[in-house]
Amino acid sequence: MNKGMLIVLSGPSGVGKGTVLEKVFEHDKNLAYSVSCTTRPPRSGEKDGVHYSFISKEKFLENIQNGRMLEYTVYCDNYYGTDAEYVDSLRKKGFDVVLEIETNGAMNVLKKCSDAVSVFIAPPTFEHLQKRLTERGTETSDVINKRILKAKDELSRIDIYEYLVINDVVDNAVQDILAILRAERIKKYNKTNYRGVLI
Amino acid sequence: MNKGMLIVLSGPSGVGKGTVLEKVFEHDKNLAYSVSCTTRPPRSGEKDGVHYSFISKEKFLENIQNGRMLEYTVYCDNYYGTDAEYVDSLRKKGFDVVLEIETNGAMNVLKKCSDAVSVFIAPPTFEHLQKRLTERGTETSDVINKRILKAKDELSRIDIYEYLVINDVVDNAVQDILAILRAERIKKYNKTNYRGVLI
Repeated sequence: MNKGMLIVLSGPSGVGKGTVLEKVFEHDKNLAYSVSCTTRPPRSGEKDGVHYSFISKEKFLENIQNGRMLEYTVYCDNYYGTDAEYVDSLRKKGFDVVLEIETNGAMNVLKKCSDAVSVFIAPPTFEHLQKRLTERGTETSDVINKRILKAKDELSRIDIYEYLVINDVVDNAVQDILAILRAERIKKYNKTNYRGVLI
Repeated sequence: MNKGMLIVLSGPSGVGKGTVLEKVFEHDKNLAYSVSCTTRPPRSGEKDGVHYSFISKEKFLENIQNGRMLEYTVYCDNYYGTDAEYVDSLRKKGFDVVLEIETNGAMNVLKKCSDAVSVFIAPPTFEHLQKRLTERGTETSDVINKRILKAKDELSRIDIYEYLVINDVVDNAVQDILAILRAERIKKYNKTNYRGVLI
């Protein structure tokens, strides 16, 4: 069995990552979603190991010191990050692991894992994103403006990603990602496996 | 419009390249097949510009001298090769050009065109190929043995190709190649085109 791939996936808030990823996971049964660790307390309805792995601040800091965090960030005094050992254990079981993370985290992961596949999901235009964030109507204009500024910053760093998928029509974006996964598997596994067949 | 990609495709005789490629071309309308030049006279039923571009030996040698041949080979005193200007004119029209060539030619093209996508189509096992070549029944055992030896040599050089597609089930091999084309287009074009959208 091959060790699975690591797929780093980013995209600004409001681009529709959730919907796209849900459909990708429906089609591709070899994927595993990497659940982040956090030190923030669970909100009502959040399950440990599903929405987050809820761990203590002491444990999180210990993980950082032991070099066990693939990436992490601090937000409102809470830590969020990816446990490298957890990701590795999934990959060793043969799963291709999807890391849905922000651009800063992605940069750190890509520095550490040169064989990771990196995908950025972008809106067709910046105006699309602005419209979508505004029309949601669930956030204050202050929050919306912060998200728009952050999206601008993230879009300015698309060059660190190997693949840029445009989420104009959801099903096209889904097919794009499925094609990327299929092509990358062919590239990474077929030659290695084939040498065994030829002997 | 983007300049099209160059796709270098190889695979041993008997692997089923023809069938696979025919189906790939049916599905993907942005592909153009590169017709080779040759100095050998047309056989009955062969059309100029379809099966080959039939040119004189003088013209072929002139093309070689002018550095106009992307690759060429001599077989039974006849020249066979790929006209770089012809390939480039198709790419400038936006077509992704498929070059179906042997491993030696592929090595030369990949040296010259570092951005070419390279695909090798292999049989599931070497025994599959042997069986297929033997069962065709149209060639003498001498010809079959030569082909088997040549296939062995070609299979020993799969490392020069980026992608290795296994032709076990034809439709899977077709879907593999379509996914590779889709992923490579996303990689090569999306970021470039998107920068224009962001301005």
